[in-house]
Amino acid sequence: MEDDNKIKISADRLWSDLNEVGKIGYSEGRGVTRTALSDADLEAKEWLSQKMKSAGLDVRIDAATNIIGLLETAKTRPAKILAIGSHLDTVPSGGMFDGALGVVAALECARVIKEHGIKLPWDIEVINFSDEEAAHNAGTVGSRAMIGQLTAKEIYVSKAKGIPPFSEDMKRMGKDPERIGEAARDPKIFEAVLELHIEQGNRLYTEGIQIGAVTGIVGIYRYGVTVKGEANHAGTTPMHLRDDALVKAAPVFTLLPQWVRARSKEMVGTIGQVTVEPGATNVIPGNCSFIVELRSMKRKDMVAIRDVLHEWVGSQQGCTMKTIYEKDSVKLSEQVIDAIATAAEAEGMSYIRMPSGAGHDTQSFAPFVPCGMIFVPCKEGKSHCPQEWIEPHQAADGCQVLLRTVLELAKRAER
Amino acid sequence: MEDDNKIKISADRLWSDLNEVGKIGYSEGRGVTRTALSDADLEAKEWLSQKMKSAGLDVRIDAATNIIGLLETAKTRPAKILAIGSHLDTVPSGGMFDGALGVVAALECARVIKEHGIKLPWDIEVINFSDEEAAHNAGTVGSRAMIGQLTAKEIYVSKAKGIPPFSEDMKRMGKDPERIGEAARDPKIFEAVLELHIEQGNRLYTEGIQIGAVTGIVGIYRYGVTVKGEANHAGTTPMHLRDDALVKAAPVFTLLPQWVRARSKEMVGTIGQVTVEPGATNVIPGNCSFIVELRSMKRKDMVAIRDVLHEWVGSQQGCTMKTIYEKDSVKLSEQVIDAIATAAEAEGMSYIRMPSGAGHDTQSFAPFVPCGMIFVPCKEGKSHCPQEWIEPHQAADGCQVLLRTVLELAKRAER
Repeated sequence: MEDDNKIKISADRLWSDLNEVGKIGYSEGRGVTRTALSDADLEAKEWLSQKMKSAGLDVRIDAATNIIGLLETAKTRPAKILAIGSHLDTVPSGGMFDGALGVVAALECARVIKEHGIKLPWDIEVINFSDEEAAHNAGTVGSRAMIGQLTAKEIYVSKAKGIPPFSEDMKRMGKDPERIGEAARDPKIFEAVLELHIEQGNRLYTEGIQIGAVTGIVGIYRYGVTVKGEANHAGTTPMHLRDDALVKAAPVFTLLPQWVRARSKEMVGTIGQVTVEPGATNVIPGNCSFIVELRSMKRKDMVAIRDVLHEWVGSQQGCTMKTIYEKDSVKLSEQVIDAIATAAEAEGMSYIRMPSGAGHDTQSFAPFVPCGMIFVPCKEGKSHCPQEWIEPHQAADGCQVLLRTVLELAKRAER
Repeated sequence: MEDDNKIKISADRLWSDLNEVGKIGYSEGRGVTRTALSDADLEAKEWLSQKMKSAGLDVRIDAATNIIGLLETAKTRPAKILAIGSHLDTVPSGGMFDGALGVVAALECARVIKEHGIKLPWDIEVINFSDEEAAHNAGTVGSRAMIGQLTAKEIYVSKAKGIPPFSEDMKRMGKDPERIGEAARDPKIFEAVLELHIEQGNRLYTEGIQIGAVTGIVGIYRYGVTVKGEANHAGTTPMHLRDDALVKAAPVFTLLPQWVRARSKEMVGTIGQVTVEPGATNVIPGNCSFIVELRSMKRKDMVAIRDVLHEWVGSQQGCTMKTIYEKDSVKLSEQVIDAIATAAEAEGMSYIRMPSGAGHDTQSFAPFVPCGMIFVPCKEGKSHCPQEWIEPHQAADGCQVLLRTVLELAKRAER
């Protein structure tokens, strides 16, 4: 058997693919706009299908518009599947690496495995999951459909006026919304799911670390808080007769980060959306509403801060709080994390174990299938913007560790 | 000479007029929308012209679309003019008393004076000033044009997209924008300017006082403050690496009312308009901008708070402040205030001397002409909304004191 140290991905081929697909939907100054099932996304999907076919993969488009490229590498049959993938769709005015890196790297891994004639304990699938970025309604549509966790109803609803639901746009690929359930597969067929992605944060970048072995994906709790006061003339209402909603709400803008920092270093809490009404210079705010978002791997921490917030809300007159949603964190597979760490070490790369602060397709599979994610640093942590950037050697590092992880998992399966 | 105590306005006629004009532009639940030079405002102006003519006034529309009804009451010629007026235009979804009360009461005073055949040291003009409520750009257009303080340029500019400039709408009354300067009159022709208005605040209402003798109109200082942070992913950016614009801005929302209350009981300070950008639940605020408004009779107090704010801004990284405008207070005439107080006393009504927290047409004249304003309470201090309300006897009280003030000024002029 070939020495794993000699099996190397092609950095040039990877970078060339990234640049080819990065041109689809790109415009100067506005970055990449390749929202799911738009013309640009359909073009990217067609580009990928061709690339997969050229690489000798058996390509199909499933009932949820996911693209699946199968490489039969299994030594024995029936064989399980090691799925490697991510998504080619982007946010509006996004970057060329979020999602695309994971898809193109998966393809590169399959190519190298095929070129070296490597036989594995399972078949490999390269997957492009559809609508990760919530173009129509909620995101991770394709991955949730594949693991049978998509509520059929939700594809008929769009998140905003003027945006078609997923059910409409999927017809552009000749897919019948009524049959989306057929995309669901038995979790038991998967040996594992792997995804390479840019960190979308600044930890690896700031600390100069090459690889993040993702331990899990943080939970997200969101609450809508409304503080009611009384709108009144800002010129004629004396200070002592005012009930100013902004003045009542303001302390929590300062308190939230204090509560979160006091609780845990791993946790974040953000108020990113604030509305002050009626919003006129000469009218005392009668209403101040905002959304509090908490993220952490630990349910206990989120519940604790939620309770502190709830107590604060209760102590303020005219203040109410409602739960928008509470999505708990998912842990990725300890065995896969360990394989990633071993792979990074074998390749001589620096790495840390770290949670993902953002959601990913892998998250859909994690409760049912052993999953692993590999992060590479992105410049200044910027993502979802035209400035999103990684260096060619960083893309190659990530792809090489992804490939080595596959080989490492194979080795472990055969032990 | 007739005993002043026997000269009474007609409460019924006044209330009936208020209700007639209050129907123009009214719709159920939405109050009165009679924005300047709209169809409804033109209808109200026509209504007023007819009422003035029926009352025997000599009516003309000046070059700035003000309506002026002259009653020749002077004992000798040449005669100066005692102007009494306010405005019939309203804010969108406003009430039926803000402005209209002052116009209708002025008309009622003229009617009573004519009916009693009273001769005065001057002629009386009943005036409806055009566009007090800033429908097109800045407000008090008609009164500033009449006293020669309107910048001709400003009538060609509208305050927002989709809103025509005053120059366009004035053509609806057959007036040529190029000739608006002809509305300017020599301040010396005016003996005084009087205006009756609802308080638009809750001091008289709360304290149960019938009449406010207005001492002046507060100055208004406005500042735009921008706090810059760094927009970043709310999930992947650890708390200690954040530069959150909202968190940096929040303390001043709490501090401003504290600064203002510590400085003076007569002063108010408001932050009514706040923008947090990019304004997404999952993005750390990169920008928080807001407008600070200060109002007081005392320049010294406003400058002091402005300086404290300026110091705070200087102490915050990425925080800047620019002056939107600084308009100093105007004092009304001590002699006219005294005449109003005497009139209220003579009519057996409770009164206080108080500043006006809102701007009025009288403010345009105050630097050049002796001016006086009379306030009556409005329910719960509410104004600029459909809930704006005064009782018939309150309207009558104000009108009676207005008439008595005219008689009192006449008496003093003849002493």
